[in-house]
Parts: sequence; C-alpha cells; structure tokens
Amino acid sequence: MREATGAVGSAPDFSGWSCPLPLRDHPRVVMGHGGGGALSAELVQHVFAPAFGGPVLAGLGDSAAVTLGGARIAFSTDSFVVRPLFFPGGSIGDLAVNGTVNDLAMSGAKAAYLSCGFILEEGVETAVVARVAQALGAAARAAGVEVVTGDTKVVEAGHGDGVYLNTAGIGQIPAGVDIRPQRAVPGDVVIVSGDLGVHGIAVMSVREGLEFDVEIESDCAALGGLVETMLAVTPELHVLRDPTRGGLGAALNEIAAAAGVGVVIQERAIPVPAPVASACALLGLDPLYVANEGKLVAFVPREHADAVLDAMLAHPLGARAAVIGECVADHPGMVVSRTGLGGTRVVDLPVGEQLPRIC
Amino acid sequence: MREATGAVGSAPDFSGWSCPLPLRDHPRVVMGHGGGGALSAELVQHVFAPAFGGPVLAGLGDSAAVTLGGARIAFSTDSFVVRPLFFPGGSIGDLAVNGTVNDLAMSGAKAAYLSCGFILEEGVETAVVARVAQALGAAARAAGVEVVTGDTKVVEAGHGDGVYLNTAGIGQIPAGVDIRPQRAVPGDVVIVSGDLGVHGIAVMSVREGLEFDVEIESDCAALGGLVETMLAVTPELHVLRDPTRGGLGAALNEIAAAAGVGVVIQERAIPVPAPVASACALLGLDPLYVANEGKLVAFVPREHADAVLDAMLAHPLGARAAVIGECVADHPGMVVSRTGLGGTRVVDLPVGEQLPRIC
Repeated sequence: MREATGAVGSAPDFSGWSCPLPLRDHPRVVMGHGGGGALSAELVQHVFAPAFGGPVLAGLGDSAAVTLGGARIAFSTDSFVVRPLFFPGGSIGDLAVNGTVNDLAMSGAKAAYLSCGFILEEGVETAVVARVAQALGAAARAAGVEVVTGDTKVVEAGHGDGVYLNTAGIGQIPAGVDIRPQRAVPGDVVIVSGDLGVHGIAVMSVREGLEFDVEIESDCAALGGLVETMLAVTPELHVLRDPTRGGLGAALNEIAAAAGVGVVIQERAIPVPAPVASACALLGLDPLYVANEGKLVAFVPREHADAVLDAMLAHPLGARAAVIGECVADHPGMVVSRTGLGGTRVVDLPVGEQLPRIC
Repeated sequence: MREATGAVGSAPDFSGWSCPLPLRDHPRVVMGHGGGGALSAELVQHVFAPAFGGPVLAGLGDSAAVTLGGARIAFSTDSFVVRPLFFPGGSIGDLAVNGTVNDLAMSGAKAAYLSCGFILEEGVETAVVARVAQALGAAARAAGVEVVTGDTKVVEAGHGDGVYLNTAGIGQIPAGVDIRPQRAVPGDVVIVSGDLGVHGIAVMSVREGLEFDVEIESDCAALGGLVETMLAVTPELHVLRDPTRGGLGAALNEIAAAAGVGVVIQERAIPVPAPVASACALLGLDPLYVANEGKLVAFVPREHADAVLDAMLAHPLGARAAVIGECVADHPGMVVSRTGLGGTRVVDLPVGEQLPRIC
C-alpha cells in the first residue's frame, strides 16, 4: 500500500506506478499462492485457466452460473485447511458449510444441496472427526442446506493435518437476478454488511496464543437469508462478494478489475471493531486484508441503495451495515481509499497473504 | 474370504458365521477408513450419517439424485490422494475427472459441469501443478464436461503430498431413468463392462517398482458414453456401480445390502487379464477387491440382458463385457461366488483396503 496525493475526483496521475500484477516466476508453490491475492490470481490466470478453458470459469465469480435441465444453477466449491480446526466462534465444519453457502449467495442463489469430501490424516482421533462432522451438520441445518453426497480419503500421518474438508454446493438462481463482478458500473454504491476482519483475527488469536481483553469470535455465518432480504428490495443488485481470503481489499480489486471500473472507499466509513483494530495494530496487519466469513460487500444501483441498506440494517447479520464508498469511472481497475486526513491511498491487491490457512 | 460348502441355490446355512460388519472401536483413524470397505462404511454409518442426516445421503449411491428448479440432477464428489501423481495410463488429473464423471454416470446422468479444488503442498513444483491441471483439462474435454468453478489452498510442507484434488460434478438425469442400488431384484443379470483390477495394479506396480513382462496401464476412462449406449437399449437398468476402492467385491456387497438381495457370481466368468492375475498372485491380492476406474457393474432385468450386453460389446469401453452372475432371493445381503471346482465361497465386504491411496 502506498500513499498518493491529490483528491480522487481530480484524476490523479498513477502512470509512473509499477504494474500491480507483475508475472512472478515461481518454480515452486509458496504459501502465498493460497492467499487469495495476486499470487493466487496468477496461478489461476497462468496455470488453471489455460488448462481448463471454458467461458464460465473465465467469469471468475465466487460461484459459476450454469444452466441444467432448464434450471439456472449456481455451482461453487471450496476446500478448507484452517488451523486450528476449532476456534472461537466456529470450526472447520462451520466454515465448510458457510463458505460454500456464501459463495452461492453471492450469485443471489439460495444453497440447496452440498457435497462434502473429507481428507483425514491417519492417527487423527475419530472423536475429532465426529465433532467436525457434527459442526458441519449443524451449520447445514442452520443454513437450510442438505448434505447429500460425500467422500472420505485417508492419507498417512505426516501427509495431512488432521482434517481437510471440501464442500461443493448448488442452488437455484432466482429469475431476473444477474449478480456478478462484471456488472459493477460507475454510480453504484458500495455497502458492507458489517464489521470487518473478525474471522481472521479470531483464528489468528488462538493460533498464536494471543489474549485480548475481549475475546474475538469469528463472524462465521451463512448469508443466504441476508441476501434474500436484499433481493426482496430489488433484484437489481449488481455485485455481491464475500471478502474471505485477501479481505475487502482483494474483493474490491477483483471487482474493479472484472468490471473495468474504479472504486473509491472512505477509510473512516469502514466498520472495524476496536478489538480487531488493536489486534491488527499489534500484529502489523491491515484490517482491509484480513479474512471474513460472515460478511459481504454489495455494489447497489444508487436509486436502490437507501432501501437496500435499510433492509440490511433490519437483518441480524446486517445490523452494522454501512455505505463505505462508490464505484467511479476514473482510474479503472483501481481501488483507492480516502484517508481520514483527506489524502488518498491506493488499495492494492495483496500479493500473498498475511494470515495463512485461515479458512 | 472364507470357504463354504454346498451349492448356493440350496440355501446353505450361514447362521453360525460372524457378523460381517461388527462395530469396531477405533479411537483413531487408520488407513483402512479410506479403503471403501467395512471400516469406511462404519465411518459413514456411525459418524457422518448421524451428523448430516437427510434422506438423500441415506441413499448411499455413487451420486445423489436431487431436484432443483424442476430439473432432476445427479450430484457427486470425490477427493483424490493417489500416489504417485502420474502412473501408467493416467494421472491424478484424469482420475479427478473420470471418478466424478463416472459417479454421475452410475445414476444414468451425463456429467455437465465440474468443480475442482486443489490442496497444494508448499514447495511442490509449479510445473507439476501445471501438468496435473493440463491432464485434468484434457480429461474433461474428452469426457465432454466443463470445469466451471474452482479453489486453491496451500498447506505447509509436511502437511500434504504435492497435490490433493477434489472434484464435484452435476449432470441431468434423463426422464424415466431411476438407477440406484436399492432397485436390484432377484432375476437381474449381473454384467461387468470389462477386465477387472487393472487400475489398482497399474498404480501399485509403479509405486512398488514392480516390473512385469507387460506394462499394466490404468483403465482410467469416462463411462458416460458407455452408459448412454446402454440406456439407449432400455431406460430400465436397475443398478450401475463403478467398482473403485474395494473393487467388485465391495460394490456387489453394497448393492446386496442396499437392496436386501443375494448375489451369486461365477468365478470363472469374471474377466481378469493374465498380467493382473499374476501380479495379484505375487502380491497376495484378490482381483475381486482391487480398484478399477474405467469399469462398471450393471444389474439388468433379465429380458433386456442380452441386448444390453450386445450394446456394451459394440462400445470401445465395453469390448470385454461379460455376464458374471445373477441376483437371487436367497441369502439377502450376501454375495457368494461359485468357484471353478464347484464349491461356493462368500465374497465378504473387505474390512480395510489392500492398496491405500489408489485414487
């Protein structure tokens, strides 16, 4: 992140800056390739996309929108390697449900069915596996989604870490709904559904044995109901994104790049709880890049923004929702933040990750 | 496996035998929990099914049949932890496509879309990841399925094994088709699509550095086209199953248990290529329990059996198809094999696995 001068509306000159996404030559995989930032994007762009091809994958949303048997279906997958398996406010089982349910919700789809794949490490206690499975089942019931198919593999001790999980999910996209990163347009209002940085700090605190005055609990939650509430106001939402790995900073950069628009956020408007801000200061982290798992960012047409915000505020998972910025025609592909002092800084796509294995 | 006396049709007395599925008390996960046999079944029965609940999961087919937006959809997932990543005739990328495509085909569904989750180990060469991705993409194109959504996680060195993969897939189930293990009925003819034991021995041979006169290549293939050919004869197929982990022995036991029927197979009718038979003799393995990844076993109503077999024989992936037995009302839940000498042996569900990490 670098400081720039000049107000944004006046088209500052970024031409001398280095390319935000240089092709890095990595002969071997590093932790940052899993961080949801620039290294992850390069792996997708240079390794996976050319190998798999296909127009749907190229959309790069949280989930794919496909048609099958006449139905419009959102389809998504995530693997989960969080360490530790249990943390304040949740577990890998909760993440595995909510992560995929939320990816589907970011297409406006209500998750209907989940698959679940376990990769167990030889020697892990079966009681631990059972606790994970129970958490996963409970989270599925809470989210109104059914686990219908699964698979279990076991690898030798020293080739896993207790339990890795994968879930995939499918859900129907309502008629008239077309939510994807490419639809952001200048004039859209940018809204977040609540406090940022909570999940990442909750996991980090237990992993590193940090103690704060107030225990920080993960915000891990299923956002399908909140999205339904928002869609009841208008099906005309343009973009939804859950800022998981890479945090809000990565999510906004991906949207700006996909739609070829600029994004301006007001630093002071971003809701960050005091304990998270303190922990970030202590750890040298930027809350903009810390992972969340029960939050979303929405790009909403200006004429619907007030009504959508009101609906979010009335929902338990949106009680701390806030307008944090807007979509602009200037500096396409770039996200800038107006600082409290009236300056402007560029919010880059993070390169790797601040906190590995957070989900 | 145990020798029994008496011809099957005359209702032999198995009452003194021990329960084939005692509840085993395993405080920790062992390799056999991933083997597709009795230990895997216990994990599903005692840990996953109670935690997840739900009527669809209880169906225990290779894939789940669900309804979404008015469409009948098959949905399935598998994780892949095969070692080595590349073996004669295929790779983990091929397995990841064909394994899930075949699970869908076992519902009569043609796979349409795949998700793909990578769990990479820090330090694995990016060139290896790229080779896997290319194999996966090529296998998807060969199977006529599109990879539409994916995810990548990275774990520290010493917590993985290069590349683990998960795929999930969806495909439409044709109208009038209802293929599932519960539909086996006495009188059904049991057909396999070709030589058994090839995939498992191919992986094992390279892993253990075994050399045979003839290199054994994995039979890894997508069976969607073969199933389409069979369904063109009649939509009235009762059961399809791809005998992967646990081999034909596990597959037949699962069907017998699900439908509450007996199965009788003729040992001499089972196609096992000579090099596989030799390797099995050398390694002390039973080809009935060795994994396949390009074969299926079908339970077909007697009146359609000849026509279905003819259609299979005319398809490249069914050229060595054979009738191997029948479904009977006697000894429900039990599979027996008539040996070459006129005796009968019980084909038990294997407990763990002969060959770990074969897929």
